[in-house]
Parts: sequence; structure tokens; C-alpha cells
Amino acid sequence: MSVTAAKGFVATGLEIGLKNSGGKDLALVQNLGPRKAAAVVFTSNRAKANPIIWSQQVIADGVVEAIILNSGGANCYTGAQGFQVTHATAEAVAEKLGVSSGDVLVCSTGLIGDQLPLEKILVGIEKAELTEDGGEAASEAILTTDSHPKRTIVAGDGWSIGGMAKGAGMLAPGLATMLVVITTDAVVDSATLDAALRAATRVTFDRLDSDGCMSTNDQVTLMASGASGITPSDAEFAAAVRQVCDELAQLLQEDAEGASHDIVIETTGAVTEDDAVEVGRSVARNNLFKAAVFGNDPNWGRVLAAIGTTSAPFDPYAVDVSMNGVMLCRSGEPGESRDLVDLTPRRVHVLIDLKAGGATATIRTNDLTHDYVHENSAYSS
Amino acid sequence: MSVTAAKGFVATGLEIGLKNSGGKDLALVQNLGPRKAAAVVFTSNRAKANPIIWSQQVIADGVVEAIILNSGGANCYTGAQGFQVTHATAEAVAEKLGVSSGDVLVCSTGLIGDQLPLEKILVGIEKAELTEDGGEAASEAILTTDSHPKRTIVAGDGWSIGGMAKGAGMLAPGLATMLVVITTDAVVDSATLDAALRAATRVTFDRLDSDGCMSTNDQVTLMASGASGITPSDAEFAAAVRQVCDELAQLLQEDAEGASHDIVIETTGAVTEDDAVEVGRSVARNNLFKAAVFGNDPNWGRVLAAIGTTSAPFDPYAVDVSMNGVMLCRSGEPGESRDLVDLTPRRVHVLIDLKAGGATATIRTNDLTHDYVHENSAYSS
Repeated sequence: MSVTAAKGFVATGLEIGLKNSGGKDLALVQNLGPRKAAAVVFTSNRAKANPIIWSQQVIADGVVEAIILNSGGANCYTGAQGFQVTHATAEAVAEKLGVSSGDVLVCSTGLIGDQLPLEKILVGIEKAELTEDGGEAASEAILTTDSHPKRTIVAGDGWSIGGMAKGAGMLAPGLATMLVVITTDAVVDSATLDAALRAATRVTFDRLDSDGCMSTNDQVTLMASGASGITPSDAEFAAAVRQVCDELAQLLQEDAEGASHDIVIETTGAVTEDDAVEVGRSVARNNLFKAAVFGNDPNWGRVLAAIGTTSAPFDPYAVDVSMNGVMLCRSGEPGESRDLVDLTPRRVHVLIDLKAGGATATIRTNDLTHDYVHENSAYSS
Repeated sequence: MSVTAAKGFVATGLEIGLKNSGGKDLALVQNLGPRKAAAVVFTSNRAKANPIIWSQQVIADGVVEAIILNSGGANCYTGAQGFQVTHATAEAVAEKLGVSSGDVLVCSTGLIGDQLPLEKILVGIEKAELTEDGGEAASEAILTTDSHPKRTIVAGDGWSIGGMAKGAGMLAPGLATMLVVITTDAVVDSATLDAALRAATRVTFDRLDSDGCMSTNDQVTLMASGASGITPSDAEFAAAVRQVCDELAQLLQEDAEGASHDIVIETTGAVTEDDAVEVGRSVARNNLFKAAVFGNDPNWGRVLAAIGTTSAPFDPYAVDVSMNGVMLCRSGEPGESRDLVDLTPRRVHVLIDLKAGGATATIRTNDLTHDYVHENSAYSS
């Protein structure tokens, strides 16, 4: 169901020939209202794709009628011609749906530096038939190297919230490289949507760091139709948005390109939450540690070498490091035997206790595998 | 010849059974004088191995009589017992050579978190016979996953300078993960040695970023015997030290674990040199770009996505990017065809013109390959 689980939304996904691999590659989601509130979080990469530049203007007033997403091309570093393609795409959607182009978000994903074929997109928009059960097709049309669609739904008391996501490589914070569309039929204004979305992405997508590479096209959109007629409390709504983001982030991690392990790095005892994030990220981005996990090698020295590069306050020789429940390093000295650690399960838990304060943060990452190298060397994306 | 090319130095390398793979694993270099000046640059990792902690005390007065180096164990995160091993090693060298233990540097390299077998080291020191042609054996004894020894010599006017290096993985700035010993028979005081060494490492080893992982054991040592009786000018000496460091850094890059390409990233048009370094490093650490080079894919979009994450001042849509002489991106738009770029040679040159100022810097890195993943997943190091 994904984006059409909430009342007031119609969607579709269709194949228009953008992806060399074939399959659906164009998705459309429309908010039928009665309300048209929205909020968006964008990539923090300074190299922004044309659809990002366009969508940042669209969201300025907090009103969104529809969103169109394509896979098969990022429309990034494509110059004035590329921006024209984005603009013309929004215009065509607006004409089709009878709305203003200034209320149409655009998302693209795929290879940087190639022009998108506008003609194919215009034909696709013309053919598109948006329906109340089109959420599934939409979630298929946004995939690139993903192995399967990512969808989730959370039910509130008389209202609901659902979402779809794509993303398999270039998963990194600010945001994890991905496109996400979340819809709700709750009655929520755009300011509340924005607050809930930013709070949720900060601790979910922004802490997913599959390969340390930040994308140029990330966009997470939250739209509210108000069709349920119910206004949840801010706290209730924020919790539901966070749950949806958390579930989608976990689905992205589990489908990361070539990964054979999902690694959860929990840092405790930090002075501040930012310190805990920095420490966790330093481990998540350490290729030697990630390759060791691929080899089922509990190489805790690489964890300590990584956190030693951070500026977080702690004594490197007071630190505890555990893997899958076995304390391998106790106060900076060898602890239990490596032989006690079983890294054959897909999920790996690394616990770092800095013993410097009371703050905690969790970063999710993946291992560095032959398949990751293969996918990212053999195919342009 | 390496460290015994310069007059006044004797050395040896021998096998004492530290390395599982067998082969020489203990090296000793002694400065016979008449002068005993030295300078050392250490890793900036806060997680410092015991030999680093020891050697930082030794170098405080600028006087060094000898240096002992072992492969087969990093002696890092080995607690009080590990520090005792380092201390006892220096004491044994001092007794053997009739010098003060406070003038004996210690270096270790290998797996973090395992205790070194002190008994084997003491037996090795007892057996060691240092000779004027022992430089070659010493350069073999410091290797870990290196495929061959790294040595270089530069001849001055009546004086000379030579060096040896080890390092194949964990190559990253501050310093590139490695042990280096450089010797000279020029008459140079420790302050001049220190200035020359810091100036040289800043633009050579510190700009070698093979896999973004910083070691806990890096140490670059420069010792001067004064045995030639000749005092070169500061500029002449600094240039020779820089040349030695540059040649050793290139040898390290060429032997990086599993690498199939040596990538030189030249950033021009930056406002400051620091900006140019930050931009180059962001590309050097981008796994997607490094995997693409492995696949001979000139994926310039990944270069732009990487530099967009930096804080260096420039307009992302004014940038030029060339690979091996082909301008793939001109002012943020597609330039020449990717098909014109031949990435089959081992050496790859990436030129980024930020068009924001007059500063330049070059970062060296390697591609991300199946062999890198294999070496770092299959073997603990």
C-alpha cells in the first residue's frame, strides 16, 4: 500500500524506458486533500541535482499537490538543459492533474551527468492513471539497484501514515542516499509536519551510513491530506513519523548494495550526543573494520584505531568495546577472547562505552564486501 | 642500502618468529655518530600504541642512539604489560649497544590487541649483529603485508640521505600508516632535522590516503650522524628530505593492499591549500569513486558528489573535472565523452579545477578492489 495507505492519496508507477535494466521507472503521487500540507528534507550535499533545486522552491510555502519521481537518471550536473527538463516535468504534471506547477515536487535518481529524455517522461505523464491502490506500483518505480521495494505503514487512532523508500548504495548521512515519500491522512499543518519530519530524519536516515558517500539527490517528503478528519497530538504524530522513518531506514540498511552484514554501532558514555554520533560514524566509515566484519573477524583493534581519530572527549585507554555481547576490550586492554564472538549472523552489534558522560547514539552501517566492489565497479550509477 | 647508505650507521634485520607468515621481523639501526641528532613525526591518532608513547619521551631531547622496529604485532591496546614490553625492549637494546635506554626509539607494527612475546625479542636483540651493509636486511624486517621492501637514497654534495619504509594498508594522513626510518651523514642539528622532516611529511606522507584509515603506530624517524663532516644549507637539506619522503610515499602507494590503480588527485583553483587538501581527500575517501576506478569507469559524477560534501569555498556548478587529460565536466556540465578516457593504465590522474582561487594540492590514493576486501577480511592485521 505504501503511499496510498492513507486516505486522500492516489498514485501510480509505470515503465517509460528510462532504466537500461527495464522495469517501472516513473512514479506519481497526488494528494487529493482536503488539505495539501507538506514538508521536505533535502540532501545537505552542496552539489544539488536539478530536481532538488526545483523542489526547494516548491516546498517554500508548505503546500504540495503532487510529487513525481523517476529512476534511471539523476538529472544532476546536467546544466541549464537539465533544469529545463525538471521544470517541464513539473509543468506537465500540473497540466495533467489541474494544479499549479509550483506545487509539484520532482525527484530523480540514477547516474549523474546524463540528460534525461524529456519526451519519454512527457509521454509517461500523459499515460499515467493514478489510483487509490497505486502505492505498490509507485514503490516499484523508484528503485535503482534495490533488490525489492521498501514500504511501511503505521496505524494511528482513526488515521494512518505510510511510506515508500528507495536506496541501496550511497547510503550516508545528510541524508542517507535515497528518495522517500511518506503520506498521512491526519490533519496536520506544514509547520508540524516539518518539525516531526526533521526530528525523525535526524535520528533515523541521518544515522544510516552504509558507505559514507553522500548523494546529490536525496529527498524525504511528507504529505498530509487531512482526509481522516482527525488531528493527533503533536507527540503522537511525531512518534508515528519516527516509527515510519525508522522502519524504512532499516529496510534500506538490510538491502544495502552487496552487504552481507547489517552493523549497529551503539556508542554510550559520550559527553554529548554529537560526540556519540562522531564516534559511531568513524567506525561506520572505517573500511578496514568493515572488511573485517565481512570476513567474520571481530577485529576490535580497528574499532579503537577508528575512534582514536575523532575529536570526541574520552580517554582512549578507558574504553570498553563489545561485539555481539562479548567484551573484547575492557578499559583499553584485551578482554574476552575473539574466539567467543560469532559474526556469522547478518546482524552485528558493536557496543562502545566511552566512559566519559551520559550521552548515547546509534549508527547503522554495512560491511565492505566483494559484492559491494563488484556492483560499484561494474555498473555506472 | 636504505638506512646504511649514509656514513655512520649500522643496521640489521633478523627473523625471531613474531610473524605467522615467517621471514625477518626485527630490525635495528644504530647511529655511530659522531653526532646523534634526530627528529620524529608520530601518528596523530589519539589511540597511540605503546612504542609511540615510549618514543615520544625518547625524542624530547633530540638525541637518538638507536631505533628498534618489529613487525608481527602492534603492541597497541595491550595495557601496562604491553608498555613493559616496550620498555624492556629499549633497555635490552641499550645494554647491547652500551647506550642509554632513554635514547632508544621503539616501533612496532602488526595486529592491535595482542601481547608481543618479550622473550623472543630479547633473544633477537642478543643475537643481532649490526653492520654497515645491514640496511637491506633491516628494510625487509619491518614489512607486514607489503609485497617488497621500500628503500631510497638521495646523494648530496659529499653527504647522503637514505631511507626505508613499510606500509601497505591503513594508509591515511596524519600519517599514512607506516614506519619510516631515514638516515643522513650530513651535519645537522635536531631542530633543523625536525623542521625539514615536518615540512616534508606534510606534503608527502600526510597526503597519501590509500584507504582513509589512520594507524595507531605511525612513526617517521630522521637521524643524522654528521659522519660526512659536511653541513648542507637548510634549503638544500630540506629539499633532499622532501625528495626521500616523496619517493618513499610513492613506493607505499604503489604497493597498497590489493590496489590495481594509483590515483593522483590534483586540486587547483582553491582559495587555500587546506581547501585543496580537503577537496582532494573527499574524493580519495569516496568508496563509490574508488570502486569505479577499479572498474575502469570514469564516473565523474562521483567526484562531484564527493567534493559537494566539503566546506571548501567554491561554486559546485563552476567546477571542471578531468581524468587522464579528458575534461569530463566543464563548468558543472557534461564535457567530453566518457568513452575518450582510458583507465586501463595503473596510474590515474584526476584534475579538479575549483575556479575559486590560486591554491593547489595533490592527494594520492588507490582504488577499491576485490583484493583489498579479500586481504582485509581474510587476515587479521
